[in-house]
Amino acid sequence: MIQRFFDHNPEPRTIGIVGGLGPYAGYDLVRKIFRWTKASVDQDHLPLMLHSFPGWIPVRPEFLLGQTQENPGEDIGGIMAQLAQNGAGVIGMPCNTAHSPRILDTALERLYATGLDVQFVSIIESAVKHMCALCPNGGRIGLMGTVATLQTRLYQDALEKAGLEPVVLGDEECALVQRAISDPSFGVKAFSDPVSPKARQILLDAARRLVEEKHVSVILLGCTEIPVAVTEDRLLDTPVVDATSVLAQELIRASCPERLKTPSDIQG
Amino acid sequence: MIQRFFDHNPEPRTIGIVGGLGPYAGYDLVRKIFRWTKASVDQDHLPLMLHSFPGWIPVRPEFLLGQTQENPGEDIGGIMAQLAQNGAGVIGMPCNTAHSPRILDTALERLYATGLDVQFVSIIESAVKHMCALCPNGGRIGLMGTVATLQTRLYQDALEKAGLEPVVLGDEECALVQRAISDPSFGVKAFSDPVSPKARQILLDAARRLVEEKHVSVILLGCTEIPVAVTEDRLLDTPVVDATSVLAQELIRASCPERLKTPSDIQG
Repeated sequence: MIQRFFDHNPEPRTIGIVGGLGPYAGYDLVRKIFRWTKASVDQDHLPLMLHSFPGWIPVRPEFLLGQTQENPGEDIGGIMAQLAQNGAGVIGMPCNTAHSPRILDTALERLYATGLDVQFVSIIESAVKHMCALCPNGGRIGLMGTVATLQTRLYQDALEKAGLEPVVLGDEECALVQRAISDPSFGVKAFSDPVSPKARQILLDAARRLVEEKHVSVILLGCTEIPVAVTEDRLLDTPVVDATSVLAQELIRASCPERLKTPSDIQG
Repeated sequence: MIQRFFDHNPEPRTIGIVGGLGPYAGYDLVRKIFRWTKASVDQDHLPLMLHSFPGWIPVRPEFLLGQTQENPGEDIGGIMAQLAQNGAGVIGMPCNTAHSPRILDTALERLYATGLDVQFVSIIESAVKHMCALCPNGGRIGLMGTVATLQTRLYQDALEKAGLEPVVLGDEECALVQRAISDPSFGVKAFSDPVSPKARQILLDAARRLVEEKHVSVILLGCTEIPVAVTEDRLLDTPVVDATSVLAQELIRASCPERLKTPSDIQG
């Protein structure tokens, strides 16, 4: 098959998305890619594949916290390889926790073993790059994510290296945020559409505490389930950065930069 | 890769979605599959692939109306074959117009030439089956869709065969609905997220006329762009049936019937 309907040069690279971690985060990334693409007819949209195989992928936080031995990176890498074999030139994974090196390195090893020409776009690097542009003179970045993402210091180390100051809430509040994400009776993973009022309230309270008690300059939603519940781009006059949205923009830039909308296109 | 996390028998069949016709309709179907799946953790969701290659697929209405010669069924069939080769056991295509036999027969020929064990679930058959359940004693079905879908009598013939009475608006109103779908300056294909107020208003007006002037018993949204703009399940006390949502339910039933929610699960 030939991509005949794109008249620019070079052709856009196909975007491959590792979905299923969780399913709604994959769908949310697809939505944000469409939203950030300059398009007025179907044919303007970028080629994209979402492979959502949640049943194949063992739980991530439990592996990172030492509660299971099975490295989800094996199966994630299998899905990445499958996407590359189907022609993906750019791959993204809407799950911050799965970017932990113990998982991601295993996955990328399997992807690169295919020998195919494919670029992995990291959600962590995308978000930190965006933070640096937002806070050129440094700043306090209020971090929300799973307990595993916070404990493995995925964002903290990357933000500090970039000259920014990561700020997290206390253990008790972080455990509550974790429940808002994954509690089977009210969390976003179980109730995504619509989100339960309880999960949304916990997440908004955590954001409020970061602003009022920790005096952060930006709130970073560093778990792809959180923006499914919290869609505001400002809270208490503080910018909220959604890592999924930033990843969507970086994937478009890597696929076909001239099709990336500017923030003013989005607001207009 | 083995689907280890499903403990029932038989294993769910992977759902393959031909996206890109248009892109937002593909994403809308994914959302509705997730919404109709019984799941409390990531691993409960069904295996699913969305392949959205809008740039590969020539325009459908123009082919059906004789304005171009290039049959989009060729490339659609190529995407179906690719999904099957990646393990899809059930395939759906969220685009009513592309179910026209001149397109679909060409596509299915290419799919079945793979020799793989795969089932295509028709959005037209799914919607008509649902209508029969909704109107066991017959009824007037108000049909909204593209001009090409209406002119090729895709739904009309199937509804009549099932003992139901299809009702469509006049040519002028149908042309307006077409513009609400595809006009590059305000249509749903160009402005999906959010939809333009103008497109939504045209679609609501058409629905109102079907009820007030044509006295239909049900409104059938027979174009997958329309439910992106019209999300109500009743208008003027008349049930609105979204063919995308019905297709989502039929795909779950074909993949793994025990994971299909009931309507009361959705309302609850």
